[in-house]
Amino acid sequence: MGLLEETLAEIKPAYEDVKQRSKVKWDKLGKPLGSLGKLELIGIKIAGMTGKLSNTTAKKAVVVMAGDNGIYDEDVASSPKPFTKILVENTAGGLTGVATLSRYVNADVKVVDLGVDAEIEHEDVIRRKIAYGTNNFTKGPAMSYEDCVKAIEVGIEVGDSLYQSGYDILGVGELGVGNTTTSSAILTALTGLTPEVTCGLGAGLLPEQFENKKRVILEGIEVNKPNPDDAIDVMAKIGGFDIAGMCGVYLSAAKNRKPVVIDGFISSAAALCAARIKSEVKDFLLPSHLSKEPAAERMLKELDLDALVNLDMRLGEGSGCPIAFQIIDTALFVEDNMGTFDELKIDSSILLDMREKSK
Amino acid sequence: MGLLEETLAEIKPAYEDVKQRSKVKWDKLGKPLGSLGKLELIGIKIAGMTGKLSNTTAKKAVVVMAGDNGIYDEDVASSPKPFTKILVENTAGGLTGVATLSRYVNADVKVVDLGVDAEIEHEDVIRRKIAYGTNNFTKGPAMSYEDCVKAIEVGIEVGDSLYQSGYDILGVGELGVGNTTTSSAILTALTGLTPEVTCGLGAGLLPEQFENKKRVILEGIEVNKPNPDDAIDVMAKIGGFDIAGMCGVYLSAAKNRKPVVIDGFISSAAALCAARIKSEVKDFLLPSHLSKEPAAERMLKELDLDALVNLDMRLGEGSGCPIAFQIIDTALFVEDNMGTFDELKIDSSILLDMREKSK
Repeated sequence: MGLLEETLAEIKPAYEDVKQRSKVKWDKLGKPLGSLGKLELIGIKIAGMTGKLSNTTAKKAVVVMAGDNGIYDEDVASSPKPFTKILVENTAGGLTGVATLSRYVNADVKVVDLGVDAEIEHEDVIRRKIAYGTNNFTKGPAMSYEDCVKAIEVGIEVGDSLYQSGYDILGVGELGVGNTTTSSAILTALTGLTPEVTCGLGAGLLPEQFENKKRVILEGIEVNKPNPDDAIDVMAKIGGFDIAGMCGVYLSAAKNRKPVVIDGFISSAAALCAARIKSEVKDFLLPSHLSKEPAAERMLKELDLDALVNLDMRLGEGSGCPIAFQIIDTALFVEDNMGTFDELKIDSSILLDMREKSK
Repeated sequence: MGLLEETLAEIKPAYEDVKQRSKVKWDKLGKPLGSLGKLELIGIKIAGMTGKLSNTTAKKAVVVMAGDNGIYDEDVASSPKPFTKILVENTAGGLTGVATLSRYVNADVKVVDLGVDAEIEHEDVIRRKIAYGTNNFTKGPAMSYEDCVKAIEVGIEVGDSLYQSGYDILGVGELGVGNTTTSSAILTALTGLTPEVTCGLGAGLLPEQFENKKRVILEGIEVNKPNPDDAIDVMAKIGGFDIAGMCGVYLSAAKNRKPVVIDGFISSAAALCAARIKSEVKDFLLPSHLSKEPAAERMLKELDLDALVNLDMRLGEGSGCPIAFQIIDTALFVEDNMGTFDELKIDSSILLDMREKSK
């Protein structure tokens, strides 16, 4: 049995009983029931993952999966292809958006080269190259099914090794010029929605390029006929190495019963694939921001998630994860440190009256 | 000339030239133009306040204005009246939501008693009591015009003293059972919208109490006929000491050319009053979260603001401010620390191509 199969066999759903006990804990805090909104839901959800009533997300990292996309050749990207390599090296070097944001919140960044179409020179990049980019999916599958499983397994290995070495939470980001196209293609194939709904302007396309992007997606689906009931087949035929690698990290989180944060549109396409492969994965996913990409909200809805912040960001890279880390850290701190009704020394008759009213 | 008049005379709009230069600074960072969304807008807006291209919000506090509301007698609140005093003392004691959240982000909390209907015992509460609560505004004005100006001036004094003693940023919150009713009343009076639109369930009203709340607001406006062109008259007749005090803090921020953060619905009602008194105040306001209160978004729209986070919070107290502080700190860190295109060593032909495309 391979690593992917083993991993899938080990994934179990959230501990519902612990979630209930976590809710009771939040309800003891001195506030109207539920008035801390998603902060409470974050605490409860994490309790359901770990099985513990007190949790920490102190040690954190953003895993950035990198790969080039053959579909670049169809003029679907606003950034030039060499940007993938440039940004991979500069992320490892600490200069990019995700690197800077991560530094600010004391998160490490782990960049993995799964399929960049160039030699990567920075020594801090994790070298797991499967190929020099994928194929142009309008001419045939982006990669073989076997290579897709390989990429997923690299994601699982990286996730396992981080969680098992003490990381409490991971965020998932990507670098790969052309990957809003692969993400929209995956969303189209998995949901049956039209590219009109699943497609956006990426990092900044012109209107005629946007029309072209929609055509390319339809063509990719027509040529490859990905099986909507097999997310691995979909990722192999019209996805990318970055997305398959991210998918593996989500699976690893679920296996290790630890939280994992989705960045934006591309990261959520990978999360959707992970959830289609094993639906229990949803119990371990936390959202971050709502990307400017128009189908981002739709993608989150497919995962039963609602973004924490709405900052109109469209950078990718994993840049939303550090911001979500701050909010998650905050939620767990409040859960363990805010005064309970007992500690607030509220007269019990007042308390009963108030709890009655706030039901 | 009183403090209020002096303050209004000193308020000037944002430095547009510095905002332009700040935008140029953001555009040099290695990313598609504008792709960091509101993080960029925060940096640019703060530059327009301070006139500096590099800013910090390291030293921060949440100012919590407290007062009871006579309108409580009309059964408009889900929490019992003694909660105002209890929460004031527990906020000073560090146990409430806003106190816990602030502690986590290294923000101080300053609680000001402007009109709590009880003796406040905690020594860390700033004692500036004007009266023991306001009057029931269905029977006549909540307070006199003079007392409203007094409350605004306390807010200005507290803000001035904090900014001048080195605080870089303040958040504005409140404690006062019944104050979603006063806030909805103010929004109704200032905008002409109906209570159907301006009213919500506060901390947790039942449907029949909600109907009552809408009736009370219409009655208050009918009885007192507040002048929609005079926000001070509106606050005096159908507002509260907490709202008038918060209004003063916003005016102080504008005078001191420093950023100030709005919490939720009540805090934004006070901000709307400040902006109606002096429209330039808008240049100094930063939003935090989108409260669960249904008119919260409408209120922010009146201020040309769009919430940073959407956490379904409805606690009040100033609890959204610490979360916004984290994002604001992050934005300023990224502005000063992320690599520029030059530092990313991107070949100039690639760069030109990319900038052309991302316009």
